[in-house]
Amino acid sequence: MVTNKKNTIYDIADQLNISVATVSRALNNKTNISPTTKELVLKAAEKMGYEQNKLALALKSGKSKTVGVIVPRVDSSFFGSIITGIEEELNAHNYSVIICQTHGDPKKEIANIDTLLNSQVDAVFISTSMKDVSALERVLKKGVSLIFFDRKKTMENVSSVTINDFQGGYSATQHLINTGSKRIAYFSGDLDLEIFQERLAGYKHALSDNGIEYNENYIFRTESNIDEGKKAAKKLLKLNPLPDAIFSSSDFAALGAIQELRANNLNIPEDLSVIGFANEPFTQFMELSISTVDQFPLKMGRMTAKVFLEQEENPTNMVIHKKVVLEPELILRKSTKK
Amino acid sequence: MVTNKKNTIYDIADQLNISVATVSRALNNKTNISPTTKELVLKAAEKMGYEQNKLALALKSGKSKTVGVIVPRVDSSFFGSIITGIEEELNAHNYSVIICQTHGDPKKEIANIDTLLNSQVDAVFISTSMKDVSALERVLKKGVSLIFFDRKKTMENVSSVTINDFQGGYSATQHLINTGSKRIAYFSGDLDLEIFQERLAGYKHALSDNGIEYNENYIFRTESNIDEGKKAAKKLLKLNPLPDAIFSSSDFAALGAIQELRANNLNIPEDLSVIGFANEPFTQFMELSISTVDQFPLKMGRMTAKVFLEQEENPTNMVIHKKVVLEPELILRKSTKK
Repeated sequence: MVTNKKNTIYDIADQLNISVATVSRALNNKTNISPTTKELVLKAAEKMGYEQNKLALALKSGKSKTVGVIVPRVDSSFFGSIITGIEEELNAHNYSVIICQTHGDPKKEIANIDTLLNSQVDAVFISTSMKDVSALERVLKKGVSLIFFDRKKTMENVSSVTINDFQGGYSATQHLINTGSKRIAYFSGDLDLEIFQERLAGYKHALSDNGIEYNENYIFRTESNIDEGKKAAKKLLKLNPLPDAIFSSSDFAALGAIQELRANNLNIPEDLSVIGFANEPFTQFMELSISTVDQFPLKMGRMTAKVFLEQEENPTNMVIHKKVVLEPELILRKSTKK
Repeated sequence: MVTNKKNTIYDIADQLNISVATVSRALNNKTNISPTTKELVLKAAEKMGYEQNKLALALKSGKSKTVGVIVPRVDSSFFGSIITGIEEELNAHNYSVIICQTHGDPKKEIANIDTLLNSQVDAVFISTSMKDVSALERVLKKGVSLIFFDRKKTMENVSSVTINDFQGGYSATQHLINTGSKRIAYFSGDLDLEIFQERLAGYKHALSDNGIEYNENYIFRTESNIDEGKKAAKKLLKLNPLPDAIFSSSDFAALGAIQELRANNLNIPEDLSVIGFANEPFTQFMELSISTVDQFPLKMGRMTAKVFLEQEENPTNMVIHKKVVLEPELILRKSTKK
């Protein structure tokens, strides 16, 4: 029979007309209960499909062996690979992983944190889009581990695994300069987020190190999707003189730009070089393959899990905090000059 | 102070040296407790960072307002869009969504089901890779709703939202025949799964309706990824005569095939037409855009959520079961002849 409601110890108590405490004693194999009553409870529990679950145990032990992972979106290769890296490492240590996506919306992120805390996770691994950290502090206050990956906030005593976004921005820009570009447009991403601030800082620093003046008009605020790349490219095409390169903080926006530029009969990389960021698989299998910055997401996921496991295995009450910074790698393909 | 352990009602009881039942009575605002003791418990609870959570309430009410979604993988546009469709519909009704991925491994799927049941979800929406249904029956036995989307098993009294995979297979094959192909190779996917059996059945039926004999040698067992498509194409290239078309049950395998065929100086669609399945975004933005079958995943996600909400809102104890079948749509691009 299918019912709409899960049977709980409250239902068993009702059914047998005994106290919840007695039911609990029976189910938890305590001694202060008569064998007859215990038998009765166990039979009723079985008949009613009641299953004492890991969760109820978790409520007592404070450990559920489940980790919650919060990402802006699941359907990019970048975040997908991070999640897979986390799973590989944690599954080997008998942890389960549950995932929530925020679509970059802080309100959804707060709701996700609530859901995960209510699911009694032992840890929250998060790539955050939050402006303030109060919701994140609530995680710590509840005694749940918190670890940042990729999109972090600065919080005391919280570990993080990120890549060196500054370096990624610097190398990409330096490469464009080395191959003759002087008017380098930049597609910025969401500048409220640290990762995008860092990439922009890397871009600016490379310009400055090469004696190229920073030009506000070359900065285009874009979200990380194809349409935003097209829109930014449309605006860029009105500049005179035309930029001779685009460095996009997002592969998706880089792809949109390439489509728009080609639709306007511009040749890539002859007229403009284009570099993206993240090494999404499509950048590789396009006929005009796209140069980009690899962020090693699988490694990032594995490292995040390892940092957590190290904290958990620490026998004392002292908590280890780590800031792990991975080095990005420039991947050169057909969308940039040799 | 950050501790490694969540404080529970057991800790509060310990701290105050009173019974767990008394703590519970205080926190649940019951009357059979002295105001002084109640005050004492509430103060201790606050001090110890104890938060009565939705979960504890869920243990009593049997409702957590959380739905668990299990998919083979999160990082495809197809499953990503389904998840987004589910979220859009459920968030509007104050439900949270947590996601687990199986990588198509039945063992991981069982572990995911456990995790979600332990997280006290009200429903499990699943795209299953399971061979037998016992783990799925356990969901129902616990009074948790179960709904299939895309990859379903035949189970009595369980709703499902799928697309007409047979029709998808049939239309794609029929189109290849209409545009002059006679030797149509088929990349099968995992033939243990109903969706891939149905696509193959559609392919066979279209051949038969057009008086074309079915040829075992034209069937290639592939997984849904680029490498598998390349491998299958390598084998296909040894056939004599060469097939004049490929219908791939996966866009990823179709892409791999296209790369391999072009590396062997074959022209697409002149030498071979290629059709994929799922309308992954890359099929559209390749210079040689790939013909495919759209499965309307956003709609599939929304429908799955709607079927659940309809079941939940049903005031009686009777459960509504629905089989929703969406119609796929053939999308013609440059990889097939006009």
